[in-house]
Amino acid sequence: MSIQIKHLVVIGTGLIGGSLALALKRAGCVERVTGVGRSVENLEEAVRLGVIDDFSHDVATAVADADMVFVSTPVAAYTQAFKAMSAQLPEHAIVTDAGSTKQSVVHDAQKYLSHPNRFVPAHPVAGAEHSGVKAAFAELFEKHVCIITPDENTDKDAIEQVQNMWECVGAQITSMRAAEHDDILASVSHLPHLAAFALVNAVRGDDESGDAFRFAAGGFRDFTRIASSSPEMWRDIALCNRDALMQKVDLLQDELKALRVALQSEDGDALLQKFADAKQARDIWMSKYGDKL
Amino acid sequence: MSIQIKHLVVIGTGLIGGSLALALKRAGCVERVTGVGRSVENLEEAVRLGVIDDFSHDVATAVADADMVFVSTPVAAYTQAFKAMSAQLPEHAIVTDAGSTKQSVVHDAQKYLSHPNRFVPAHPVAGAEHSGVKAAFAELFEKHVCIITPDENTDKDAIEQVQNMWECVGAQITSMRAAEHDDILASVSHLPHLAAFALVNAVRGDDESGDAFRFAAGGFRDFTRIASSSPEMWRDIALCNRDALMQKVDLLQDELKALRVALQSEDGDALLQKFADAKQARDIWMSKYGDKL
Repeated sequence: MSIQIKHLVVIGTGLIGGSLALALKRAGCVERVTGVGRSVENLEEAVRLGVIDDFSHDVATAVADADMVFVSTPVAAYTQAFKAMSAQLPEHAIVTDAGSTKQSVVHDAQKYLSHPNRFVPAHPVAGAEHSGVKAAFAELFEKHVCIITPDENTDKDAIEQVQNMWECVGAQITSMRAAEHDDILASVSHLPHLAAFALVNAVRGDDESGDAFRFAAGGFRDFTRIASSSPEMWRDIALCNRDALMQKVDLLQDELKALRVALQSEDGDALLQKFADAKQARDIWMSKYGDKL
Repeated sequence: MSIQIKHLVVIGTGLIGGSLALALKRAGCVERVTGVGRSVENLEEAVRLGVIDDFSHDVATAVADADMVFVSTPVAAYTQAFKAMSAQLPEHAIVTDAGSTKQSVVHDAQKYLSHPNRFVPAHPVAGAEHSGVKAAFAELFEKHVCIITPDENTDKDAIEQVQNMWECVGAQITSMRAAEHDDILASVSHLPHLAAFALVNAVRGDDESGDAFRFAAGGFRDFTRIASSSPEMWRDIALCNRDALMQKVDLLQDELKALRVALQSEDGDALLQKFADAKQARDIWMSKYGDKL
């Protein structure tokens, strides 16, 4: 399958939006890319880097001639973007996105888009430590999973075109319900971020000498790397997926409680079993998917 | 300061013991190294690699002529090692170690060594993903912190010689009380390991599709890397430092509880504050110590 997008509008021209534009251009799958964003400097940089052809600060103006609109702002900004584009969006235009949560996004689309059946919710599971259009690169999505969460009302041709777009940049499409997406991502992404923030705060709050971090080693560095992520972005994701996330926090607390009980009762066998189960699951995961990361 | 060890006996000839022997040999600070261990293959390999000069399976025989004894077995094996060496150890010999917990080790030394004042508890804060003497390398301790935890009864000359030995291989000595060591390491090492095991188990137990790990990305990989550590080793460490570790688990639970309350009440400001505090602490730590890892 191939795709030829005449006019792609990228709302939020950062790492994700910029990388998609670059990859589509390199593959010859897009004719014109318009970037929308708040920072003139960033948008001018995006033009210089060949990521976008032109830009606008006004969503409504930008989308008036769009064939495909890609929303890659933080999820908390979707309401505003959907509201702004709804009246001007051509009937044939497809809207898709890259948000880390999907039920909240579908909710916003149904509420604010005039043709929510042309919206194909998507989440490319890829990222990098740096952000902004300067960090964009065409290979970001290659061999990475892109989850789409259309429902029974989503137009079939819109789904197909969004699939073709992602396959064009090397991503592997998986389709699931939005609720399932949010449940899985709460487990493998949102909970680890919350736990990393919590762990750093636990150490920080207990550090009488003010220097405990000095004795931290590579394991601590890796474990807490995601605690250096954007607080604003993670606040928004946590709030947009709060039901699933609260349930996962409960599961983590249950596991910690079980370990504490084993410690309290000096139950070495229980500790060993728990540690061995975790090691086995993690090792199997790494052997299956580790080379794709 | 320099040191010249005539006869070093390494009990447990793996990554840590092997790397110390290699580094001391390279620096010309040791004349003869005897390895003690259970596996003949590993000890023969250690001789082939030039890590040790000879070996023995019997602790008592090996230490009879020792000037310095370095215990680098898992902490659960110390009791046995101390018991075995006590009767044969020359009076002038110094015993030191590399255990990840210190109060339990001091307790064992006082109980089983005939001259506990010649024991200098130590913990070089270094490690690598691989284990065994094949993984040993002379640079392992360079620029890494080595914590020693002598008390008021420890012989001053023994302390000085152990310090000189570690400085000879490039480590930076820090001295503190054993209880303080165990408290700090519970925070920055033992708790993160427990949390990583708990997190993987939380995801594993909740994975109805059996395939949630497929959607895990780089953050999850790094966060859970330490969950691939040796379950036996971490059972032993957890049990040896259970009081401090239980207290840290409680602190982590408190932090998770606070985040859950913020989620429940949709308190974005509280989430943002918690996340920002953690990011700031982690970023400061990385800028101060990140290059030493």
